[in-house]
Amino acid sequence: MSDEPLFGRIAFVGIGLIGSSLARLVRREGLAQHIAVNARSEESRQAALRLGFADSAHADAAEAVRGADLVVISVPVGASGAVAAAMAPGLSPGTIVTDVGSVKQAVIRDIGPVLPDGVHFVPGHPVAGTEHSGPEAGFPELFADRWCILTPLPGCPRAAVDKVAALWRRAGSRVEEMEPKRHDEVLAITSHLPHLIAYTIVDTAMNLETTSQADVIKFSAGGFRDFTRIAASDPVMWRDVFLNNREGVLEMLQRFTEDLTALQRAIRWGEGETLEELFTRTRAIRREVIEAKQA
Amino acid sequence: MSDEPLFGRIAFVGIGLIGSSLARLVRREGLAQHIAVNARSEESRQAALRLGFADSAHADAAEAVRGADLVVISVPVGASGAVAAAMAPGLSPGTIVTDVGSVKQAVIRDIGPVLPDGVHFVPGHPVAGTEHSGPEAGFPELFADRWCILTPLPGCPRAAVDKVAALWRRAGSRVEEMEPKRHDEVLAITSHLPHLIAYTIVDTAMNLETTSQADVIKFSAGGFRDFTRIAASDPVMWRDVFLNNREGVLEMLQRFTEDLTALQRAIRWGEGETLEELFTRTRAIRREVIEAKQA
Repeated sequence: MSDEPLFGRIAFVGIGLIGSSLARLVRREGLAQHIAVNARSEESRQAALRLGFADSAHADAAEAVRGADLVVISVPVGASGAVAAAMAPGLSPGTIVTDVGSVKQAVIRDIGPVLPDGVHFVPGHPVAGTEHSGPEAGFPELFADRWCILTPLPGCPRAAVDKVAALWRRAGSRVEEMEPKRHDEVLAITSHLPHLIAYTIVDTAMNLETTSQADVIKFSAGGFRDFTRIAASDPVMWRDVFLNNREGVLEMLQRFTEDLTALQRAIRWGEGETLEELFTRTRAIRREVIEAKQA
Repeated sequence: MSDEPLFGRIAFVGIGLIGSSLARLVRREGLAQHIAVNARSEESRQAALRLGFADSAHADAAEAVRGADLVVISVPVGASGAVAAAMAPGLSPGTIVTDVGSVKQAVIRDIGPVLPDGVHFVPGHPVAGTEHSGPEAGFPELFADRWCILTPLPGCPRAAVDKVAALWRRAGSRVEEMEPKRHDEVLAITSHLPHLIAYTIVDTAMNLETTSQADVIKFSAGGFRDFTRIAASDPVMWRDVFLNNREGVLEMLQRFTEDLTALQRAIRWGEGETLEELFTRTRAIRREVIEAKQA
């Protein structure tokens, strides 16, 4: 591997968990000569400089991206279009723009049209995260052994896609290319629906009478605590995911509800064999997740 | 604390994850002079002797419990009544019998009536576990900082309850007493429903077309993998839980479905504020779980 940095200047527009983790990785591995960040709050900009993953911090997105070889948009997907429009005046032909959004069709719809001609957009999604958020929560190992999905558009130069892929590989990720529509369907079941369900069950527990609520916390080790972890994920990010992958989520939700209703019926009628057979089959999936090193 | 063992002879009827973990703890802490185990399979009995947490291993339950001061029933709750009946001939007046079942009303209904007079039954439930099962999966630290719920019946001598509580405290657990009915309601939401939902979503994913299944495994880091872990739990144990806490589970399931339907509607109609507000509230619950040291 060459010692040459992959990029001259990288700009991060948004430095939450994902953006700040990647910026830390870029810094640690020396993948850019200059890291510029754009964040709305003064507090976040100060944090980026203090934590050392930014060389310069800008309140203005266009200023942050000026002269950048690569721009990484890492904001809640609902804000993608607005930040892309805000930074557009600073972009030059040949600049590569990528993003890290959990939804791809909506992001392509919102970002694509506002970018100037000659700018290459490579939509991306690192399938990694924690329940923590903000610039302080990031860490450079977040992407190790995780998948990063790229959904390049027809007409995008191969060299631009390869360069984004190279960055993620340096972060320890495995890279896969996929159609945007397929991405949104797959993630609806592997990520969006699990989060929706976790949020719901925690809500159901909160709606119990006050005394029961205390018991729920106390005895959460029985399974509930895993859901509380997922349901602690960033509220704005997840609001935007559900609003922007509505079709995919509603389709998977419908299938889930049907399956749950069938199980409910089996419990009501005491159909032990149905339950045991299902629970035995689901165990096999765990083994596959472990073998795929995603556990 | 006295160096005197708490018990002369402890018998474990069933040595899966929970039974074998407690037996290991008893051995390590020297809480009994003799540990007898009863297991159906020759393989498990040999494992108990080889792994060193049993002094004697018996195919016959009555033989295993003969002369025991304490008997710990740790079998799937649906088998409780049958094993209690099988061991009853070996029990003497004054013996304490406890169990570790995740459901308490059904266990009391099944075990209580078959025990001889003068035997003291102290129903219990350590709220701890992993997705692994069997005698090899146990470890003595499983109960540290977890709650153990006891649901003693009216008329049970205080000394018997205290002795079982003392055992769990030596295992590092905090002990709470509760009405059996209340136990089953609380555990329905903190444990049984989370497991049912995890089994369901893994099933929903398995029912997708084959190509999508591979993607589900691959991109499971987005949230799905946490559900696969829960859905890998012992199938027979969980079948029995749902069949034996039917009312509690169906009640919580109904509430959950109502809440999920409300969220589904908010997604369909693009009600971002409803989503964000809910996701912000659920985050607070995670903090409480962490503060309660159950994370």
